[in-house]
Amino acid sequence: MHWTLARRAEKMNPSVIREILKVTERPGIISFAGGLPSAKTFPVDAFAAAAAKVLRDDGPAALQYSASEGYRPLCEAVAAWLPWDVNPDQVLITTGSQQGLDLVGKVLIDEDSRVLVETPTYLGALQAFAPMEPSVVGVDGDDDGVAIGDFAAKAPGARFFYVLPNFQNPTGRTMGEARRAALVERAAALDVPLVEDNPYGDLWFDAPPPAPLAARNPDGAIYLGSFSKVLAPGLRLGYVVAPRAIHPKLLQAKQAADLHTPGFNQRVVAEVIKDGFLDRHVPTIRALYKQQRNAMLGALEREMQGLGMQWNQPAGGMFLWARLPEGVSAVDLLPRAVERGVAFVPGAAFYAAGGDARTLRLSFVTASADEIDTGIAALAQALREHLATLHA
Amino acid sequence: MHWTLARRAEKMNPSVIREILKVTERPGIISFAGGLPSAKTFPVDAFAAAAAKVLRDDGPAALQYSASEGYRPLCEAVAAWLPWDVNPDQVLITTGSQQGLDLVGKVLIDEDSRVLVETPTYLGALQAFAPMEPSVVGVDGDDDGVAIGDFAAKAPGARFFYVLPNFQNPTGRTMGEARRAALVERAAALDVPLVEDNPYGDLWFDAPPPAPLAARNPDGAIYLGSFSKVLAPGLRLGYVVAPRAIHPKLLQAKQAADLHTPGFNQRVVAEVIKDGFLDRHVPTIRALYKQQRNAMLGALEREMQGLGMQWNQPAGGMFLWARLPEGVSAVDLLPRAVERGVAFVPGAAFYAAGGDARTLRLSFVTASADEIDTGIAALAQALREHLATLHA
Repeated sequence: MHWTLARRAEKMNPSVIREILKVTERPGIISFAGGLPSAKTFPVDAFAAAAAKVLRDDGPAALQYSASEGYRPLCEAVAAWLPWDVNPDQVLITTGSQQGLDLVGKVLIDEDSRVLVETPTYLGALQAFAPMEPSVVGVDGDDDGVAIGDFAAKAPGARFFYVLPNFQNPTGRTMGEARRAALVERAAALDVPLVEDNPYGDLWFDAPPPAPLAARNPDGAIYLGSFSKVLAPGLRLGYVVAPRAIHPKLLQAKQAADLHTPGFNQRVVAEVIKDGFLDRHVPTIRALYKQQRNAMLGALEREMQGLGMQWNQPAGGMFLWARLPEGVSAVDLLPRAVERGVAFVPGAAFYAAGGDARTLRLSFVTASADEIDTGIAALAQALREHLATLHA
Repeated sequence: MHWTLARRAEKMNPSVIREILKVTERPGIISFAGGLPSAKTFPVDAFAAAAAKVLRDDGPAALQYSASEGYRPLCEAVAAWLPWDVNPDQVLITTGSQQGLDLVGKVLIDEDSRVLVETPTYLGALQAFAPMEPSVVGVDGDDDGVAIGDFAAKAPGARFFYVLPNFQNPTGRTMGEARRAALVERAAALDVPLVEDNPYGDLWFDAPPPAPLAARNPDGAIYLGSFSKVLAPGLRLGYVVAPRAIHPKLLQAKQAADLHTPGFNQRVVAEVIKDGFLDRHVPTIRALYKQQRNAMLGALEREMQGLGMQWNQPAGGMFLWARLPEGVSAVDLLPRAVERGVAFVPGAAFYAAGGDARTLRLSFVTASADEIDTGIAALAQALREHLATLHA
């Protein structure tokens, strides 16, 4: 049988990160590569109690087909949780926020549509948009987020600008208040919708980040949120908040994609989070991740002495962004690091088009503080050996 | 803000069925419209025990991100359940079998690609393929399934032929042994892949249907299955079995769509079905649905006397297909039926292009046998009144 593939499928290649993650599953490897939340933070007992209650009180409804919009009490809980005036009718529950990206792509992207993303950006968004065959353009940025001038220069004709303002994946950077205000104002003036992805916003360490972009101009933004980082990713529960002009289209795309997000899971999470559970639970995640970020910063300071490595100090989230000394490619370093028992993701994977080969992403949430110490020491050792080879 | 929609989104319209289902949610309406399995068949206690065990024994892993391929023991259980030689590596767990259709569309359909479907066909498949903007062509059929000659005539250049051989949605018809053999042979000779959708195959009443198309030429078919009708739809668990040439592409599309199907749900179902649960459970569903089909056939026989209505006698599944007397449109009849307290889906919704306005689909699984009696009597009354108006 000869299968004629769609053009987009011919172009699909195994994800770099996916291949790396396979390596990191080897026993004994300390992984700074994946974006896996610490399983220690999963409220297993609360889920067990909620699952039992949902099946006991509401089993047949929880196991039946249900509305594509989502379980109404969960839509209401999401609307109440968000820090601006959201009507539950604007909320669409998705099968993880990754699905929100798929739906946004289907509703807003034609072949060759101009789509703006940050430089670098979340690899999964590039993958979700790819089937719609957009022309993706990276907007420059700095430690404070998006460069407004570059955005304005690249904005004409763009279908939307995909932005991750809080503790960005992959860089860990956060967009400041003034920058947010400027971006929202320019986007409105230039008539470019914003697609704001905020999976990490609640994971701040010392102070909450500035208000979301969507809160500043709700009619000009689609907002994507997730329960993956504040509860657990294995239930695949995310949500989209969309203006009335867009919500019905996203809803139809959702229905065609998987009919609805599992009603059982939606009821379990609605049950877990009622009565303020997140207000008690999320601070424990913040404290753990802050401690692990501090462990990583400390280990880098200690182990990377004199090696010419640079890194940032994320104020929340899961990732730290680092840069190797001149002439060292992260892709070249990776095999030696894995040999030494430690893994990371080369930063080049996160650029829409050709990236800085010296960059790498380090996750500080999967490994414990002790493992972080061991892993960063191993990474330093790998770098020393690699530098010695280069200069030999 | 001006939002420029993708062309496909401009074309999206609220699903006819969706709008009808809203009406049928009114209290007091007996619905033959939806495809909702009888909630009586959901093994709530087995799910409760399995959910508790999974969270107790394997909580952190069940709640963590997991492989896009699916939970390996579930892939193995699916491979073992299917009646031909399937390697677990060929199985991809999907978020309901609706997602399988979305992934097939992404991997095999370009804009204007020729895609063959049955006449009529599953509306959700048309909706799932629509974002890829195919040119959909309906293949003629009769009570025994697809018309082979018409298939052969329309096959040249087709990317695939989407077929639902068992107790089809919407017609309830089943393709016979000789027809299956002929279709598989011609499809192979003409180099047209088959996409076989089999959500209802296990719901046979007197004898199992002939072997699946995929079993006859595994390299020439993608097979879609579901746990929605043999366990419960609210967990959104389906699967795709694909040849080695296609599986990696579907896997990548899956990863981009929602990363993976909820690991918790996959573990719960794997736990429920181990030790032969389905072998004990599915016969109870068959018995219930057979009784309800019989109730519907009996009620139609009794109530439709002399009204000129025709219907078939499905040998399994969930749906019966009926045809109103000459000159009566199902769309016109529907509001009067709803007034009398009964709902159905007009058959025209299920045709790729313009359908027989006299047809309608009646589900016999959602309503109980008593409700079926009442509902069919109400439908007959609505038809009598409607005929009186037409002839007035």
